[in-house]
Amino acid sequence: MSEFDNVTVTREANVYFDGKVTSRKVTFADGSYKTLGIMMPGDYTFGTEKAELMEIMAGKLSYCLKGDSQWHDIQAGESFNVPAESSFDIKIIELVDYCCTYLD
Amino acid sequence: MSEFDNVTVTREANVYFDGKVTSRKVTFADGSYKTLGIMMPGDYTFGTEKAELMEIMAGKLSYCLKGDSQWHDIQAGESFNVPAESSFDIKIIELVDYCCTYLD
Repeated sequence: MSEFDNVTVTREANVYFDGKVTSRKVTFADGSYKTLGIMMPGDYTFGTEKAELMEIMAGKLSYCLKGDSQWHDIQAGESFNVPAESSFDIKIIELVDYCCTYLD
Repeated sequence: MSEFDNVTVTREANVYFDGKVTSRKVTFADGSYKTLGIMMPGDYTFGTEKAELMEIMAGKLSYCLKGDSQWHDIQAGESFNVPAESSFDIKIIELVDYCCTYLD
């Protein structure tokens, strides 16, 4: 287990895909933020505004970045990056607990 | 939207009922803590150690406290209390976003 200290947490969740994907926003003292989220098994597509670092704390998934024909299998302890103003397809194989960092 | 400031958030989620119920722990400077969670539609039973205040930010549910034969329908903006060392049954009608405060 690890912790984020001295942060602000938004009480209300972000809910996507009928609740199969949910997340909560954590804002740091410097104004940067991350979301901590859960993805239930299923297939989803997400768009990005900022670039993102997706860290997988639990579960298994496969992802494919926009413009890439290759799917990548990853699991707990691994991560991937998504460019800004792009998108990615994701297949959740086993429930995923993730931390998404929004990069400038 | 509301926020909890100057808190510590545990990065890893708590996962129950195959992920149909998940929560994240938020710890305050005085050592007290709450969990922010999501419950997908379904029927669940939870036991308590400490007494709990369950605040419903979104969704609809019905609950029945241990030793009570009455079900209570509540929704976003409402809350209920559960005694310590007890349990409650809960039927989630529409996805629930909740805040659980653990009381001493």
